Amino acid sequence: MNDSYLNFVNSPFGARLARSLGLPKPEVLRRYRADQPEFGGLIAIGAAREPRLLDALANLVASIGVTSVAHQSAGLWVPLAHRHGLMTGRFEPAQADSSGKLAALLFDASGIEDSSQMEPLHAFFHDTLRSLGRCGRIVVLGRPPEACASPRQWTAQRALEGLTRSLGKEARRGITANLVYVGEGAESGAEATLRFFLSPRSAYVSGQVVRLAAGAAQSLAAFDWQQPLAGRRAVVTGAARGIGASIAGVLAAEGAHVIGIDIPSARDALDATMRQLNGTALAFDIAAPEAPAQIAAALDEQGVDIVVHNAGITKDKTIAKMTDAAWQNVIDINLSAQERIDDALLDAGILRDGGRIIGVSSISGIAGNLGQTNYATSKAGVIGRVQSMAPHLHARGITINAVAPGFIETQMTAKIPLTLREAGRRMNSMSQGGQPVDVAQTIAWLAHPGSAGVSGQIVRVCGQSLIGA
Amino acid sequence: MNDSYLNFVNSPFGARLARSLGLPKPEVLRRYRADQPEFGGLIAIGAAREPRLLDALANLVASIGVTSVAHQSAGLWVPLAHRHGLMTGRFEPAQADSSGKLAALLFDASGIEDSSQMEPLHAFFHDTLRSLGRCGRIVVLGRPPEACASPRQWTAQRALEGLTRSLGKEARRGITANLVYVGEGAESGAEATLRFFLSPRSAYVSGQVVRLAAGAAQSLAAFDWQQPLAGRRAVVTGAARGIGASIAGVLAAEGAHVIGIDIPSARDALDATMRQLNGTALAFDIAAPEAPAQIAAALDEQGVDIVVHNAGITKDKTIAKMTDAAWQNVIDINLSAQERIDDALLDAGILRDGGRIIGVSSISGIAGNLGQTNYATSKAGVIGRVQSMAPHLHARGITINAVAPGFIETQMTAKIPLTLREAGRRMNSMSQGGQPVDVAQTIAWLAHPGSAGVSGQIVRVCGQSLIGA
Repeated sequence: MNDSYLNFVNSPFGARLARSLGLPKPEVLRRYRADQPEFGGLIAIGAAREPRLLDALANLVASIGVTSVAHQSAGLWVPLAHRHGLMTGRFEPAQADSSGKLAALLFDASGIEDSSQMEPLHAFFHDTLRSLGRCGRIVVLGRPPEACASPRQWTAQRALEGLTRSLGKEARRGITANLVYVGEGAESGAEATLRFFLSPRSAYVSGQVVRLAAGAAQSLAAFDWQQPLAGRRAVVTGAARGIGASIAGVLAAEGAHVIGIDIPSARDALDATMRQLNGTALAFDIAAPEAPAQIAAALDEQGVDIVVHNAGITKDKTIAKMTDAAWQNVIDINLSAQERIDDALLDAGILRDGGRIIGVSSISGIAGNLGQTNYATSKAGVIGRVQSMAPHLHARGITINAVAPGFIETQMTAKIPLTLREAGRRMNSMSQGGQPVDVAQTIAWLAHPGSAGVSGQIVRVCGQSLIGA
Repeated sequence: MNDSYLNFVNSPFGARLARSLGLPKPEVLRRYRADQPEFGGLIAIGAAREPRLLDALANLVASIGVTSVAHQSAGLWVPLAHRHGLMTGRFEPAQADSSGKLAALLFDASGIEDSSQMEPLHAFFHDTLRSLGRCGRIVVLGRPPEACASPRQWTAQRALEGLTRSLGKEARRGITANLVYVGEGAESGAEATLRFFLSPRSAYVSGQVVRLAAGAAQSLAAFDWQQPLAGRRAVVTGAARGIGASIAGVLAAEGAHVIGIDIPSARDALDATMRQLNGTALAFDIAAPEAPAQIAAALDEQGVDIVVHNAGITKDKTIAKMTDAAWQNVIDINLSAQERIDDALLDAGILRDGGRIIGVSSISGIAGNLGQTNYATSKAGVIGRVQSMAPHLHARGITINAVAPGFIETQMTAKIPLTLREAGRRMNSMSQGGQPVDVAQTIAWLAHPGSAGVSGQIVRVCGQSLIGA
């Protein structure tokens, strides 16, 4: 729960010592606080030929109330910003310095149709990256490659992944770099996602690629940016403690009524967590055969809008030493139980149209892990669940996605031996572990009514972990 | 080019010292040699309910001439093997020991339709993994998740990725673990791919997922397993030295006539390499505007069957220090030039129906890399090229794929500072760098006439590098 090295090297004495010894100095990441402004500072805008997303960006800049400057690659921005009534200026390469005057770098690459047209990306990041302040944000915007008309366009749009991930690895200083592919027709639904990636809420999300499609009609209900989940009911499994309690807390802070589920033996902790949030506690063992029907019955009257499958267990052993029960339990609780519960809620219409299902996968489910054949199988299955269900649920306006946490500081990770823990913590672009709230905020973005165009996706919350597949 | 630690810890004294100090001992990987049998030893067969691929496996076992034993999960194997006239026995859990008596573990998971049916995977690997010898092979076979009829089946099939990758990380000792998804109708075309993953040719390929589809009709020409590329003409760019020369050598050894292309300044080395292989040397700068037409003209008369885009350059710098020329050159040579050459060969029908295009991506193109925004962009573009062109080329029976090398021991990597080089070398399941021939053999599999069902795919040659995205 406590990264003492991070704290030490960010103390006055520790910083001096780290500097003189040449030790890494992970940034104290800026995280969302309700009592501090979420957005601020100067945003630099870049673009390649015929950018299609500048209107969406102008709406965003107006909505979050920040000031923008146009890089020379984005000549269209100044007149456009003026038409939107926005103050804007120009960013000249000669102004580049390391004063940290920029809070974010946004590049609209949507017009690139050929690999020979990518030079403006270099010009923009070459000129601006040094001026991006600590915990700054980089967002590259493109078109979904697989929807491009020509192979040349697809290729160039796909190439943006390599650039964005390299920028994340170069930038350091708590800076995140993410790539958002905005499909045709999805431009007007991009705001919730762009807000998330510009916000301190995405402190530990970097190197990710997200696709936005036009949301289904059911999902276009009005909402309030301050309390986007007001009036929504959210089920969170494993909500008594740790990451689950953090998820429940963030969803409640966004206005949701949270129904927390946890096993009967955790009833006291669950009751305490839910009491704090004015939520509802349901003590069920989700793996029990009767659980889906019981949960459905408990939720039937009022229905539910958001289901977060956070409950999960580990029973680590190399497969030669792993018992049959350890294999079966982990697969059953982490994967099969979620399938059974979803199906019960969906078949009976208890999960309402326009709803959200959010699973929790893991870096282990992506890359595999030593001693975790059972866990990695279950968490890879969660990815399959998301990918397979998304098209089925589209007509009802229900989205399904998963987060895949990397090294998150919890009571569980606190028990890992020191050297392994240190390696896990530092092997990412933030040089530190994430916090439960980083997972929770990512889930809150996926649960957002403005995220109707995000479905079938896996978003890592890993600080751009080196580890992958 | 030389991993002196690997050599040292595999010497009698070094092995003793490493053991007493608790140092890692990377295996000397067994690689393909024309003067040694490619296949041998005992293969254990496992299966889950209603396996659909046992017939294909029986044909494979008969074709490569190995002996099989059936795990109790694969009760159907014994009668089936007898029908195929194969010697076979049973593998009892009580026989499990670390004698290394098994050369490969093959599991047919194609019948799994629900996450509750995965227990036989545990039973099989639990019982057999300890008995798998050094440089052994694990191949899990399933159905392509995205082609599954139900979300439950898709989910369970997708879960196999987490298992396979975890097995690769657990097994160590030079053992590889790969997952092959065999589509309906592709069963009879699986042999070339299964041979590759069972062979010492795939020594440095682990943790990979490959999809087999039914090949197009044009691709079903007869071939000889000893000289599968006999009568084929193969173009290899950057063929003068290093990985390119190794690719040329392996393709020639498989029977191809190789046309090596390299820049005019490398003409002497290119001539020498091609002379050894009875190949043809063409000195062209592939980035020159006239190169596509020149290459097309040089190949026009006889046509070509295989194109390997191996030529590539690096010009590493952080983006703030990277010149415009360094950005443009790398994108142009590594990506745009390939697009131009392919299009020239395809438009004129010089690349014949049933042909093969093979690109070279990189781990950097997947995960991004510090100081390589240009290179990673170009190599991510290669992935887009493969994915976008595959459907276009299907009707002509042409496949397009790419390899993505990890840390390969070359003159280039020999110049990396020692500590970084050591980290790059050890951070994979083989605890060592790969050799150029590992990349070349993977390309030869993709170029194989029996690989007609493999298209649109990226195969990492990285020893299951920890690094990924």
